[in-house]
Amino acid sequence: MDILPVIEELSQPTPSKILLVVLDGVGGLPKEPGGPTELAAAKTPNLDALAKKSALGLLTPVYPGLAPGSGPGHLSLFGYDPFKYVVGRGALSAIGIGATFQDGDVAIRGNFASFDTSGLVVDRRAGRPSNEENERIIGKLKAEIQKIEEISIALYTESEHRFVVVLSGPGLNGKVADTDPQKTGVAPLSARAHDAGDAGSEKTARILNELSKRIREILKDEPKINGALFRGISERPRFPRMQQAYKLKPACIANYPMYKGVASLVGMEVLPGVESLSKRWAEFDFFYFHFKKTDSTAEDGKFDEKVRFIEQFDSWLPDFLALKPDVLCITGDHSTPSVMKMHSWHPVPVLLSGPNLRNDAAERFTEDHALKGSLGQLRGVELMPLLLAHAGKLQKYGA
Amino acid sequence: MDILPVIEELSQPTPSKILLVVLDGVGGLPKEPGGPTELAAAKTPNLDALAKKSALGLLTPVYPGLAPGSGPGHLSLFGYDPFKYVVGRGALSAIGIGATFQDGDVAIRGNFASFDTSGLVVDRRAGRPSNEENERIIGKLKAEIQKIEEISIALYTESEHRFVVVLSGPGLNGKVADTDPQKTGVAPLSARAHDAGDAGSEKTARILNELSKRIREILKDEPKINGALFRGISERPRFPRMQQAYKLKPACIANYPMYKGVASLVGMEVLPGVESLSKRWAEFDFFYFHFKKTDSTAEDGKFDEKVRFIEQFDSWLPDFLALKPDVLCITGDHSTPSVMKMHSWHPVPVLLSGPNLRNDAAERFTEDHALKGSLGQLRGVELMPLLLAHAGKLQKYGA
Repeated sequence: MDILPVIEELSQPTPSKILLVVLDGVGGLPKEPGGPTELAAAKTPNLDALAKKSALGLLTPVYPGLAPGSGPGHLSLFGYDPFKYVVGRGALSAIGIGATFQDGDVAIRGNFASFDTSGLVVDRRAGRPSNEENERIIGKLKAEIQKIEEISIALYTESEHRFVVVLSGPGLNGKVADTDPQKTGVAPLSARAHDAGDAGSEKTARILNELSKRIREILKDEPKINGALFRGISERPRFPRMQQAYKLKPACIANYPMYKGVASLVGMEVLPGVESLSKRWAEFDFFYFHFKKTDSTAEDGKFDEKVRFIEQFDSWLPDFLALKPDVLCITGDHSTPSVMKMHSWHPVPVLLSGPNLRNDAAERFTEDHALKGSLGQLRGVELMPLLLAHAGKLQKYGA
Repeated sequence: MDILPVIEELSQPTPSKILLVVLDGVGGLPKEPGGPTELAAAKTPNLDALAKKSALGLLTPVYPGLAPGSGPGHLSLFGYDPFKYVVGRGALSAIGIGATFQDGDVAIRGNFASFDTSGLVVDRRAGRPSNEENERIIGKLKAEIQKIEEISIALYTESEHRFVVVLSGPGLNGKVADTDPQKTGVAPLSARAHDAGDAGSEKTARILNELSKRIREILKDEPKINGALFRGISERPRFPRMQQAYKLKPACIANYPMYKGVASLVGMEVLPGVESLSKRWAEFDFFYFHFKKTDSTAEDGKFDEKVRFIEQFDSWLPDFLALKPDVLCITGDHSTPSVMKMHSWHPVPVLLSGPNLRNDAAERFTEDHALKGSLGQLRGVELMPLLLAHAGKLQKYGA
């Protein structure tokens, strides 16, 4: 069931402030059986002291066994059922880079790729070009492509080999399959409507196939970037905003497009730079603070680097506490064990500091201690009602 | 998903008896961080001895973060999904006081209130009158109001400032908003249909607005009680009965209207007085026993009084055990921490005594011990299938 309409009914505005810190991919695994995880290996005096006064638990981001992407991982933490509130990757990227992207538009994540003379894909990422090279190519394409049929085509550099396309115009929709074949040595797929005969998706697919062709023509003399693959074709989703669902005035502090994108989708104002947290503390009553390095180092398999960034966050913690949030929650959107070099399904520790807590046997912010915590075991989507409750923002359910 | 139809398919009648004791609001919080909760502070030799031989767990009544009212809290324990089986407050009160309340009728919870000369509410509870004063006013109103249009109006004293209205007649429904403005210094709201244009709710709202006006006129010379506010306007819900869903013959022993009401709604026979438990033990195979004082003392903020009533219940426990129920379950419908003076969302301990239990590290009926119990962590709605299973009343699911 979708709890959001129930929470909307019960939520009430109050002056209390909630700070939700997401240490991306913070949950981990031991390097060897019996050894410490990244969190257990890290020296975290500030987190340890806070854990002793807090309630801990273990949070399964989406569902046991499911390793969530950043979108569903974060939507869960924000209280949105990730099976109901689904965002396509293209939509997330478009919002994240600040593209003009309105209701009815369709966004696509593009990969610049290298094709051989017979039209087969030889490198799905065109040798990971620099952002500058990406911008040069985008400039070249923009000069030649503005419209296909009556549909406006907007093109944006994302980073390296990634770019974003936004289609604007009547009668489009996002129910179209990727053209990325996910391997080399084969031709790209044709863009194809999920439901044959659906006019909107047939039209979107037709525009994208024409766009693919035009890009190949324009780039035919480029040595590396001579084509594109399309992924994550999607409309802009229309989700309830946190203002309405929770009566909050929410803000996001994140550096990467993806996290800004998902935050803005649920109504958060995206603030620039880490220093905004203290500077603009008075203006909002909910802050989402995103810390990326615990994920990116683990995706590169760098256990010790991940440990170092956990320790860096620990050194920042006193500054967060100095703001005196009424409710402070520290958790992750998923685990990224360094030994796996990828997002995983393992539950992540969650720490809740605030009023009305039960006693708790957990003494550190680690996976082991979290299992003994008084919050027990939670799903990601259950976190937000708990934060609202501890902040005094939820009325009683039923008489 | 609603488990009730599945359970109905699997349940079978057997001679075994289940006793479900609900210590209202029994879960608590420490007075100071690190201190004991009410349950941990209480001296409970009988509960301790039973806990050592039982399986414990922690039960989240409705949903993490949601503080349930008595209705959803109890319906969950009885196995009814509180998001699907919703009862309005008026309906619960009407059933609870034994009012004639039939399918198609609409029940309303009234508050006697004090109004100033310009019609603004100055006390939403009219100084909490005695039950006798309430009865005097109800008598005065009944003498003058029997019908509005063709709708019969029945009026009942509930307690203190609370009374109940039952509307009977054709074409009514309960989709009407409260007239209680929830604050003083303002006029009461008009009764208004949730969906403008819906004939049944427009009619109900019209009758209630006329009733408000008539009550003000009749009571205009009363010094304190000179008006009424309407809340929880609701139809009588039609729920599956426990007889049908569980093949049980169920009985309720409770002193307060609310609990009798919700019990009768799921088919329980309401028995008079505590002594009915032993007197009528042979006649039923499911008993729900309600103990109120753990909640009411905590709502008044009286930590030590709540402890004393936990100890009182402990002294009664040998009498319960002497009946030799096949399955005995002790839990709460929600937490009411004395320090919060209100229902809370925190999970409550649950104790299950009977056959086929796992070993269990829990040694006392407290929040801390329950977290270590072999029942793990449950939702309220998951309890009843477990009790039926331990009582041998559930067949295998699927071949």
